[in-house]
Amino acid sequence: MSLLVVGSVAYDGIETPHGKVDRILGGAATYIALSASFFTKPRIVAVVGDDFDAKDEAFLKSREVDLEGLERVTGKCFFWQGVYSQDMNSRQTLRTDLNVFAGFDPKVPESYRNSPYLMLGNIQPSLQANVQRQMTGLRTVGGDTMDYWINDYRDELFATIRHWDFLLINDSEARLIAGESNLKAAAQRIHELGPKWVIIKRGEYGALLFHKGQGHFVAPGYLLDEVFDPTGAGDCFAGGFFGYLASRQESLDGRSIDPAVLRRAVIYGSVMGSFCCERFGPERFKSLTRAEVDARFEEFQRFTSF
Amino acid sequence: MSLLVVGSVAYDGIETPHGKVDRILGGAATYIALSASFFTKPRIVAVVGDDFDAKDEAFLKSREVDLEGLERVTGKCFFWQGVYSQDMNSRQTLRTDLNVFAGFDPKVPESYRNSPYLMLGNIQPSLQANVQRQMTGLRTVGGDTMDYWINDYRDELFATIRHWDFLLINDSEARLIAGESNLKAAAQRIHELGPKWVIIKRGEYGALLFHKGQGHFVAPGYLLDEVFDPTGAGDCFAGGFFGYLASRQESLDGRSIDPAVLRRAVIYGSVMGSFCCERFGPERFKSLTRAEVDARFEEFQRFTSF
Repeated sequence: MSLLVVGSVAYDGIETPHGKVDRILGGAATYIALSASFFTKPRIVAVVGDDFDAKDEAFLKSREVDLEGLERVTGKCFFWQGVYSQDMNSRQTLRTDLNVFAGFDPKVPESYRNSPYLMLGNIQPSLQANVQRQMTGLRTVGGDTMDYWINDYRDELFATIRHWDFLLINDSEARLIAGESNLKAAAQRIHELGPKWVIIKRGEYGALLFHKGQGHFVAPGYLLDEVFDPTGAGDCFAGGFFGYLASRQESLDGRSIDPAVLRRAVIYGSVMGSFCCERFGPERFKSLTRAEVDARFEEFQRFTSF
Repeated sequence: MSLLVVGSVAYDGIETPHGKVDRILGGAATYIALSASFFTKPRIVAVVGDDFDAKDEAFLKSREVDLEGLERVTGKCFFWQGVYSQDMNSRQTLRTDLNVFAGFDPKVPESYRNSPYLMLGNIQPSLQANVQRQMTGLRTVGGDTMDYWINDYRDELFATIRHWDFLLINDSEARLIAGESNLKAAAQRIHELGPKWVIIKRGEYGALLFHKGQGHFVAPGYLLDEVFDPTGAGDCFAGGFFGYLASRQESLDGRSIDPAVLRRAVIYGSVMGSFCCERFGPERFKSLTRAEVDARFEEFQRFTSF
């Protein structure tokens, strides 16, 4: 069933110890949708400028991403530029040009409003809430956020996530939202804020899934032979996770989800995040096949069973 | 079957965000032996001064640790003092008094020489090699080391680990030994240096087991409700790992070990490391039972299966 993805479609300039690209397709909605496209047919609500490249549009269409909700306005696309440290565990932002993204006011096309699944990429919380209000047949909604909104838009953020089923964030964001350094305690606090499921992304160390009142699941990270570029890996995790959930519609009955399906969704999230790191930007998804995705899922089973 | 443990028996002064102790039993051999004692009967080769407390000796004996190889000399025990950061992911050493440990020249008692299993705690590599040469019926040997020996005693260290089956180290040490930041590549390089199995401890993130030519196993960390004091957790991992291996003698035929047993040994290592963090120093092992150990092992199965 269809998954609506909201967020940025952007260009990135990226430098890692393996090389440098001046301008490559990026943005949270791009990564989430491309990753989810291996499981379901995603729809995008985002905004681009008139410099949005036809080749990139063709790439998204080749992955059957529905672009009816991609608004085109005069100006330039959101641009981000950054450089990674030698071990790639940290990065420095060199430039952020919001451009057309500064005025982004997501409008959900009529044909999208009945999408049962909604994944809200990291944008201003009030805009995330606006999107959710435009939906008419939502079954499951999840979203991401970042330190900027947690620190400076705390009340707005809390009012927004109160209506989410899933919160997908990284470990430092979880600690910041909850004011708790222990992740179990942080997840408990976040459950009280609304989300029944909290997924904490830990980069190379994998992810944690907390299910309110039902315990937790620990997913390891995949050991890559080489991390080429980690940009977008967290969003690809979200895309794999939500895409797999949406593909298993029969297991989603309102807000009750089969715990075994959820655990597999977390592993598919890790799988997609790991593929993302193998090339610059979203390049890996140009050649990736569903068979490769499933083979890596099975690899996860082999290297974790005991 | 018996496991011989070589390393320090010491006193520590520890400060964590949860409190402070001025002087508590510590040292690698102490933690390894106490942890291993839940699976097998460990023997210790170490040195203490005349300030070694009768209560601490009684504690080790209560866990059936064989102290025949505990040498007593005039002077004071090794003393270490440190303070942990707020998140406990780093610590600062305030004081290191080697005391009687400065002249430690491990002598293996006649009755210990036929021990089939040997775990060499972090001491000077040439001393580790001396111990190994004194053994007459070794089946399996593993050891630990640290940045100081890797940087300043590199040749001596490499000549020593060439004869080890297992190397148990943390991630930064693995990178330092191998000159590789990628952990898969680092393990590959370490296999070339001798050890057929490389176990990389990652603190709260669990551990990795690399088996030369046979792939790897990823063990997650246990999510504690509260990390009280991480001192000794890595050594407790080693003790749980090696203690469990030694208890499964039938699965150890020379250098061929059942891979399923090895994976379970890694999980038991994680289990023991997690218990260690629940109290100051080795205090948790005063009340811990084997039933609690096995219950936590089963918990690992529940929160990792998918």
